[in-house]
Amino acid sequence: MNFSSKLLENAVTEFGKLPGIGQKTALRLVLHLLNQEHSQVSKFTESITVLKNNIKFCKNCHHISDAELCEICTSHKRDQSIICVVEDSRDIMAIENTHQYNGLYHVLNGLISPMDGVGPADLTIAQLVNRAENTDVKEIIFALSATMEGDTTIFYLNKKLNTENIKISTLARGIAFGGEIEYADELTLGRSITTRVPYQNSLTK
Amino acid sequence: MNFSSKLLENAVTEFGKLPGIGQKTALRLVLHLLNQEHSQVSKFTESITVLKNNIKFCKNCHHISDAELCEICTSHKRDQSIICVVEDSRDIMAIENTHQYNGLYHVLNGLISPMDGVGPADLTIAQLVNRAENTDVKEIIFALSATMEGDTTIFYLNKKLNTENIKISTLARGIAFGGEIEYADELTLGRSITTRVPYQNSLTK
Repeated sequence: MNFSSKLLENAVTEFGKLPGIGQKTALRLVLHLLNQEHSQVSKFTESITVLKNNIKFCKNCHHISDAELCEICTSHKRDQSIICVVEDSRDIMAIENTHQYNGLYHVLNGLISPMDGVGPADLTIAQLVNRAENTDVKEIIFALSATMEGDTTIFYLNKKLNTENIKISTLARGIAFGGEIEYADELTLGRSITTRVPYQNSLTK
Repeated sequence: MNFSSKLLENAVTEFGKLPGIGQKTALRLVLHLLNQEHSQVSKFTESITVLKNNIKFCKNCHHISDAELCEICTSHKRDQSIICVVEDSRDIMAIENTHQYNGLYHVLNGLISPMDGVGPADLTIAQLVNRAENTDVKEIIFALSATMEGDTTIFYLNKKLNTENIKISTLARGIAFGGEIEYADELTLGRSITTRVPYQNSLTK
């Protein structure tokens, strides 16, 4: 693209580094900001700066938090005996939105992926093992993506955790709500047949 | 959405104000920035602040520029006798990318739109009239959107400009390259038939 201003080009380049934002979208966003009041633009940039400088990660579960411990870990209403292991904070928000889970979480900050150079030491696995051994945990749920990396991570964690007294579970796989059977992939459809549930059970949701 | 941090919520809200960015995308962008180095994040915010504080608009054509006059207005290679009237700077970039135009521009900074409270006084119409009267302009091209607002603006400008010695033209309307006739709307197709061009002319592009 041909920019009439170096400053404009600079801002568009920076915006274009964000995931899913191409050059054209970046230009549209920058021109939008350029048309805003000065106060609005500084509110925008300050919200990012303040977030980056002051954000904390919960000491216990590594979730994004304003304090040393996050609201979930400090809540007395949550079941302290279940830990749901997730890849990042976004997964916690997604699960919280379902209102179907009332235990604690543990954020791994990624998945084991040798291809991307991410090994077990880069994740918060030691801390999870520590929590499993030193707190009164009865169940650990692996809520990780159904990908090669997710499966590898679950396999590794399962070996690492001393699971004698702890129940280990993973998310149910199957046809999604609203999913049409003819468009489901063979793996999912096959799994959903072999792990079929009694009709009465499927109603108690 | 349920945010675990006020700072995070704040940043997501600010990002969500950008056009075409919803809550989910905003969260993804903010979490991406959160995972970047401090230096990268300050580069991002500074590029916006510097742009907003230092950007200038060309005194002559109102295009975004780093200097008092933009590169197009100061160029000796451009044909000073043609002015192409556009809605905003993005249109200039689009036209420049075609490499088919070698004259000057004039940015209106919007279109007349009574519904949105935008009247002629909000645009740079007076400056355009001034340019048309005081410089040696032979042709003015209206490159405005083919919408109600665009047509209204062209109608108003045509009345305002003293067009005795100036040729006024608008963009050609018709079937777009790659466009299929069966999917073209009646208005466009009808116009493209009534304003059909000799086959030989259509080749000289």
